[in-house]
Amino acid sequence: MATWKNLDTLASFDKLAELKGRVNIVEAMSGENGAKRVAEYNTPMAAGLNYNYAAKEVDDTVLDALADLAEEQQLVEKYEELYNGAIINTGEGRRVLHHLARRQQGDPVIVDGVDKRKFYVSQQEKAAEFAKKVHAGEITNAAGEKFTTVVQIGIGGSDLGPRALYIALENWAKANDTFKMEAKFISNVDPDDAAAVLNSIDVSRSLFIVVSKSGTTLETLTNEAFVKDALVKAGLDPKNHMLAATSETSPLAQGDDYLESFFMDDFIGGRYSSSSVVGGVVLSLAFGPDVYARILNGAADEDELAKNKDIRKNPDMLDALIGVYERNVQGYPTTAVLPYSQALNRFPAHLQQCDMESNGKSVNRDGEPVNYVTGPIIFGEPGTNGQHSFYQLLHQGTDIVPLQFVGYRKNQLGVDVEIQGTTSQQKLCANVAAQIIAFACGKDDENPNKRFAGGRPSSIIIGDQVTPESLGALLAHFENKIMFQGFLWNVNSFDQEGVQLGKVLATRVLAHDTDGALKAFSDLLDI
Amino acid sequence: MATWKNLDTLASFDKLAELKGRVNIVEAMSGENGAKRVAEYNTPMAAGLNYNYAAKEVDDTVLDALADLAEEQQLVEKYEELYNGAIINTGEGRRVLHHLARRQQGDPVIVDGVDKRKFYVSQQEKAAEFAKKVHAGEITNAAGEKFTTVVQIGIGGSDLGPRALYIALENWAKANDTFKMEAKFISNVDPDDAAAVLNSIDVSRSLFIVVSKSGTTLETLTNEAFVKDALVKAGLDPKNHMLAATSETSPLAQGDDYLESFFMDDFIGGRYSSSSVVGGVVLSLAFGPDVYARILNGAADEDELAKNKDIRKNPDMLDALIGVYERNVQGYPTTAVLPYSQALNRFPAHLQQCDMESNGKSVNRDGEPVNYVTGPIIFGEPGTNGQHSFYQLLHQGTDIVPLQFVGYRKNQLGVDVEIQGTTSQQKLCANVAAQIIAFACGKDDENPNKRFAGGRPSSIIIGDQVTPESLGALLAHFENKIMFQGFLWNVNSFDQEGVQLGKVLATRVLAHDTDGALKAFSDLLDI
Repeated sequence: MATWKNLDTLASFDKLAELKGRVNIVEAMSGENGAKRVAEYNTPMAAGLNYNYAAKEVDDTVLDALADLAEEQQLVEKYEELYNGAIINTGEGRRVLHHLARRQQGDPVIVDGVDKRKFYVSQQEKAAEFAKKVHAGEITNAAGEKFTTVVQIGIGGSDLGPRALYIALENWAKANDTFKMEAKFISNVDPDDAAAVLNSIDVSRSLFIVVSKSGTTLETLTNEAFVKDALVKAGLDPKNHMLAATSETSPLAQGDDYLESFFMDDFIGGRYSSSSVVGGVVLSLAFGPDVYARILNGAADEDELAKNKDIRKNPDMLDALIGVYERNVQGYPTTAVLPYSQALNRFPAHLQQCDMESNGKSVNRDGEPVNYVTGPIIFGEPGTNGQHSFYQLLHQGTDIVPLQFVGYRKNQLGVDVEIQGTTSQQKLCANVAAQIIAFACGKDDENPNKRFAGGRPSSIIIGDQVTPESLGALLAHFENKIMFQGFLWNVNSFDQEGVQLGKVLATRVLAHDTDGALKAFSDLLDI
Repeated sequence: MATWKNLDTLASFDKLAELKGRVNIVEAMSGENGAKRVAEYNTPMAAGLNYNYAAKEVDDTVLDALADLAEEQQLVEKYEELYNGAIINTGEGRRVLHHLARRQQGDPVIVDGVDKRKFYVSQQEKAAEFAKKVHAGEITNAAGEKFTTVVQIGIGGSDLGPRALYIALENWAKANDTFKMEAKFISNVDPDDAAAVLNSIDVSRSLFIVVSKSGTTLETLTNEAFVKDALVKAGLDPKNHMLAATSETSPLAQGDDYLESFFMDDFIGGRYSSSSVVGGVVLSLAFGPDVYARILNGAADEDELAKNKDIRKNPDMLDALIGVYERNVQGYPTTAVLPYSQALNRFPAHLQQCDMESNGKSVNRDGEPVNYVTGPIIFGEPGTNGQHSFYQLLHQGTDIVPLQFVGYRKNQLGVDVEIQGTTSQQKLCANVAAQIIAFACGKDDENPNKRFAGGRPSSIIIGDQVTPESLGALLAHFENKIMFQGFLWNVNSFDQEGVQLGKVLATRVLAHDTDGALKAFSDLLDI
């Protein structure tokens, strides 16, 4: 059994803290030493990706200290306990089994007599069979027409991950003849969100998936009612159009309002649920079950790498360790995620949830306040768009923001033009390479306005193309990074009690059970 | 003439710094005192909006100190100099005239014999006339068919602001019968961005606006070539479909490749250019010139309020001052922008650019390093989506993030449903009211996991509905806030030298003129 300890009780952390400011990357990344670092500080990931940390503020001494920290905090042991079914989510007394849904290699996890791996796989198979019947025209609308659109109704973890993955593969699927149905997403309780989506589709030929693990998410139930209302007004029977993705014990699972229901359970948290039916139904319908299976395979291969105790061969753990060095030793409060791929447009928003909701905690897994900072602020937009936006501050602002680049050698659609002797894709790649060096090394100038101090650390994940496998590996990399950081900070990365108070107060506002400032704001908003 | 001074040389800033941690909003916002604050700490904005700062860490003493700071730093005088045509952009030796494009009240600004206000208005009128002819079918494609789609090709300031405004009013325009043409946007040099947009439209019935002030933006020229290539391949003459929005001296203005050209100049920076033809052409085409004029009117009314020397009657200046108190006294490094309106989906991305590119500087307007922090990290997503994502960290993380809410009493499309006795819009409003109190007051609990420390400051801008006028006022509010903060920090908010180095290095990569780490990364990316 691993021992759970606060970060600041570890001797290895004290040693690491002594290495504050050790590496000057302006120097380290200059000249031939820089090239040597690029070659050496490079770790293979799954699906042909590579994690390159040459431009991070590390050297062999810092890496050795990080290795000691990984060992003392028993990161791999804790990961093994997690995927073998230990109660890692202490607050809610739950297991954490999203790895299991994508081919986990450890012991079988049996809960109340149920083999959980078989359960997750059986639901994936159910989604696959259903999708195949829809694609084949065996399941149709009442008029016998094929369904052309699938709409996911969910919020937070039931929305951001599946939406980011859909956007990431939409063009790839079109270019590779696996595009089956258009997907749309309704999340916000703002009625204009649902109305705009409904205005943009043919509801008679659409399937709607109501996604809520608890079956009680107010936004999602509200939007479900909104959609049902629209179906009825269009003269359609909602039962022919509505699907549910929920837990077997939820209110949604009890009704017979759905054409089909798909199940998950409490052991896969919302922000990790792309690997469950939360992602599986919509993505199998949109791209076919085979593409969805390839995403899971890429993720599973990355999960496998995360078991390596050698930090230089474990990109997920290494990324986590470097992040904790930046956060708790170097003192940087934020991290930017910058994918140089339009396909990864919404991937930063997904990571923002996954990271900030997992590790934005002030108490340890035993409920005791911690004396150090935990999860950073995560934000980002795709490059090169960001270059023409907030990069000014990243280059010349007063704060240092560690950067996490992602780049690919090839685009997805294969269409390109040559301008001034180079393709768009070459320009895209040239920009990300240039940015890494500009941030790391900076540049002096007589004009102080044009001076770049450099010393702004970044890593890059480089791949060949955004494919189902490489996307799955990327997803799992960040999920595992966040998990390892949770272990390092000794927080419970798998609950989210911080979202409850707002819900309670909103219910009171709607019941007009308020006083003081809450009543005053409610009055200003005419509620 | 105003005197330009660093923040830390001001006696009023020293006094303000003594007020660190003065207001405990857990107490201040509790009970009837909280209701009193909501009533008192409320400043009218233009177009029926209100800026409410009851839940900020201020009281009358802090506000008096902020008023002294505003006076000593001569904020209103500097604004007056700006709109009267002083060379505020010291780095580039330029005026800053975006206010002039939307009815500025000061002296005429004559540059090289040209009345700049007349120039901007004449270009707006040209865009209006052009749009009317397109809508009336007087300007058509070669086959005599009406144009149905307009595509903006631009990046950064030529993209984010106009795109955010388009998304903000798309549904409003549809509900109010002013929707004329669909707009799309191509920005990223990733060829998949342009290809996906082209795949989604009928190019034969589309107009494309090439937007680049300098006429040399590599991404935009590349995407222009990409689009022209597609037009030619479709058997169309690009000249019948391409428009330019650029400066009169740019290479784009010289060619005769465009059906029509619209002009701006160097005195309106990219991130402030929604009020120039950068926003004017696409929005006039999409919604009609009258709607665009209404946006400018809302902005102009807000600009007018920004002249008031009484900080309690100047919402833009007050917001700026509170932000500097949070950044430089309280020590908070980030700010989240959280609009409770799906229509404002991309407004945070626009503000992220406008703020971080303007004030992410380490030298003052004379090029001397400053000894204090300047622009914060800005990020955000619409509520209630964010509640199910990163709010966990905002509520219970170890860092405090000041929050900027925006909320509206009414939705845009007017379609809504009642579930559990309340409409979606009421639920949306109830949530934002609840969040303000949850963040400010927190809640104790026996279970430390469910404990909320509170003390997390927020403001809210409340309006009736996202309309052209209120959107213009909102835009101007933040532009002016950023301008005042630049004055407070004594930085030049109107240049962006920090984006240059990456461009230079990218050009070297494409020319294979690299060595060391830059060559190594280029090789890894197969450039």
